[in-house]
Amino acid sequence: MQIPESLDRLIQEFSKLPGIGRKTAQRLAFSMLQYTPVEAEHLAEAILEVKQRIRYCSNCFAFTEEDPCLICQDPRRDHSLICVVEQPNNIFSIEKSGVFQGLYHVLMGAISPLDGIGPDQLKFRELEQRLEGDEVQELILATHPTVKGEATALFLQQAFESKHVKITRLARGIPAGGDLEYVDDVTLIEAFSGRQRFNKGEV
Amino acid sequence: MQIPESLDRLIQEFSKLPGIGRKTAQRLAFSMLQYTPVEAEHLAEAILEVKQRIRYCSNCFAFTEEDPCLICQDPRRDHSLICVVEQPNNIFSIEKSGVFQGLYHVLMGAISPLDGIGPDQLKFRELEQRLEGDEVQELILATHPTVKGEATALFLQQAFESKHVKITRLARGIPAGGDLEYVDDVTLIEAFSGRQRFNKGEV
Repeated sequence: MQIPESLDRLIQEFSKLPGIGRKTAQRLAFSMLQYTPVEAEHLAEAILEVKQRIRYCSNCFAFTEEDPCLICQDPRRDHSLICVVEQPNNIFSIEKSGVFQGLYHVLMGAISPLDGIGPDQLKFRELEQRLEGDEVQELILATHPTVKGEATALFLQQAFESKHVKITRLARGIPAGGDLEYVDDVTLIEAFSGRQRFNKGEV
Repeated sequence: MQIPESLDRLIQEFSKLPGIGRKTAQRLAFSMLQYTPVEAEHLAEAILEVKQRIRYCSNCFAFTEEDPCLICQDPRRDHSLICVVEQPNNIFSIEKSGVFQGLYHVLMGAISPLDGIGPDQLKFRELEQRLEGDEVQELILATHPTVKGEATALFLQQAFESKHVKITRLARGIPAGGDLEYVDDVTLIEAFSGRQRFNKGEV
């Protein structure tokens, strides 16, 4: 017996989602069959609505329902700081921690010559423009700690070093709550080379 | 910053799916933002369509778009064999193997007194009715090899032992391709007690 056509189509649609294989897609599709029609409509509507309502902020390229986004609009945030990230969803991770009260700039990717992605494929010119006035004092590079992320950070550092703006990069080291046994060599080397005096008064 | 409302709602809807936690729901929701509107519509439509088109077969309770289902309708299948399973999706697993050419009966669960689930909450009477004529020769119990599944199999065996029908249960033992090291004790005990002569000619 074939799986009924409409069920098979739903399994295929779920399989297209990232990290969802055939088995998980089947499990999700079967669970939809247990849903009430109203619950299924809620999910379908939520999918359509997110496409209709979410856009990119024209200033910082965050996900937003209003343009410019609520962060760019907020006068209480520090407009002299811009944190540069690769993807719009990176902003949610940083916001969740509550550690940063400045603005963001999403590059929409990272430099990767092998994939044909250079500054022109990213929101680099738009970042350059935001640095034109003298409002921005510091650019915090929060690209991922990967080869592409590092290359991107290096590129931005070189591109803007002649400007008045201070350029910083997020600290590298062992993560909080981690066990030394599970920390990889590169992280350990960086944690050693970036070590700081414990007795801060003496620094 | 709050996650935009429509995005947050989609994350919540995805979180309701089985086995999908908050992090995975976020990843799925973010991936929807990268979808084109047409792709998102395909997914939403597939969800709605499956609810509209899929129903339970009134004879065997399989998922189907036609009633009775294609298996119950098929004259080439062996109508003297009924394989009893707990859930409609179990049928797909068995059909995929191609090992079985009879009909099915979905109980819609397993007996579980603690959860208040007895024969009356399952499709037990419907199975009893299907055994009334003398067409059905064998009932193959394929409920799960769990406590509930075993209890259900035992109940069915006792309920139907006075009938003319032959009752069998799927063989238990070590799975193909498994490593003895990873086989649990219960399975190993069952594999020993159910051992068969290797030189079949001598049995």
